[in-house]
Amino acid sequence: MPTLDFWFDFASTYSYPAAMRIAPLAATAGVAVRFRPFLLGPIFQAQGWDSSPFNLYPAKGRYMWHDLERLCAELALPFRRPQPFPQPSLLAARVALVALSERWGEEFCRAVFRAEFGEGSRIDDRATMARLLAPFGVDPAAVLASAQSEPNKILLREETQAAQQLGIFGAPSFVTSDGELFWGNDRLERALAWAAAVKNG
Amino acid sequence: MPTLDFWFDFASTYSYPAAMRIAPLAATAGVAVRFRPFLLGPIFQAQGWDSSPFNLYPAKGRYMWHDLERLCAELALPFRRPQPFPQPSLLAARVALVALSERWGEEFCRAVFRAEFGEGSRIDDRATMARLLAPFGVDPAAVLASAQSEPNKILLREETQAAQQLGIFGAPSFVTSDGELFWGNDRLERALAWAAAVKNG
Repeated sequence: MPTLDFWFDFASTYSYPAAMRIAPLAATAGVAVRFRPFLLGPIFQAQGWDSSPFNLYPAKGRYMWHDLERLCAELALPFRRPQPFPQPSLLAARVALVALSERWGEEFCRAVFRAEFGEGSRIDDRATMARLLAPFGVDPAAVLASAQSEPNKILLREETQAAQQLGIFGAPSFVTSDGELFWGNDRLERALAWAAAVKNG
Repeated sequence: MPTLDFWFDFASTYSYPAAMRIAPLAATAGVAVRFRPFLLGPIFQAQGWDSSPFNLYPAKGRYMWHDLERLCAELALPFRRPQPFPQPSLLAARVALVALSERWGEEFCRAVFRAEFGEGSRIDDRATMARLLAPFGVDPAAVLASAQSEPNKILLREETQAAQQLGIFGAPSFVTSDGELFWGNDRLERALAWAAAVKNG
């Protein structure tokens, strides 16, 4: 089965609808998706940004919040703006890397996005992580310990470097097995079509 | 008939596919489109940018050129990267404002985009403008004189201010009669659907 890498940052607003849409669309397209959490922060810093461009450029930010709300209404996704924005996503990304080594990893990632942008919850505290891990029948303390272990911290750093080396500059981004990069929730369908064609082509 | 305003800058890369796609899609949607050329330069300057973000942020720029080429191939549009980028679009925007007061204005705008991004021609000189005006059976010198007249210069300044007041921060942008803003070639279909629903709603 052809694959598509789904690169996202939990702090990224448009990664929310992308994470919620990708599984059924990929199933229809016959494409296997790999969830690849990473951190946009270091990539933004390399571009000279010390915050989200949606904060740095107010007109762009105003548009984005309105557009995201409009998009969520269309997709029947709950929407509530998290405060502060962007949410520090380091802890959630580390936990997600551990979760994604298990069968319930993708569902956990969706739960994080739903908590953050559907309920407006903070995602940068251990209590929220524990609450979101609980339904999967795992010991939250053990998962959090793995998440904060040195090898897992290094793994997230390497994933972020890999994203940067792929030319990724924003999220969500999609990369096909032949290296085609697509940026933005709007490009999900096209990325899946490209991924599917790699197999057949 | 419901209307949709199509705000574009001739220097804007994604305005090219949008300009080429909009007429047939609008006809199908039953929406009347108004071409509204403006200048992104002053809006970018207000954000602290002295060039295109595609030049200021190299990873974003590399992606954009590859993506535009891929998109043009898909749409069977000719593509050739203009040098330098961005092309100074002041003269073309002024001429377009004059052209758009005539029946052949939209076709002239498409001719400018085709010359710039299809042939890689410069669009900032009077000779190119004259060449692109010639097929419409008008006197290029007279059109250029109107374009450079004081009232027309003021009109373009006012249009650019109007764009900024609508919250526009990039191009192409689409604004419905009830003030909904959609940014980007990817959003053209959604903007048309929204515009069409305003009438029926």
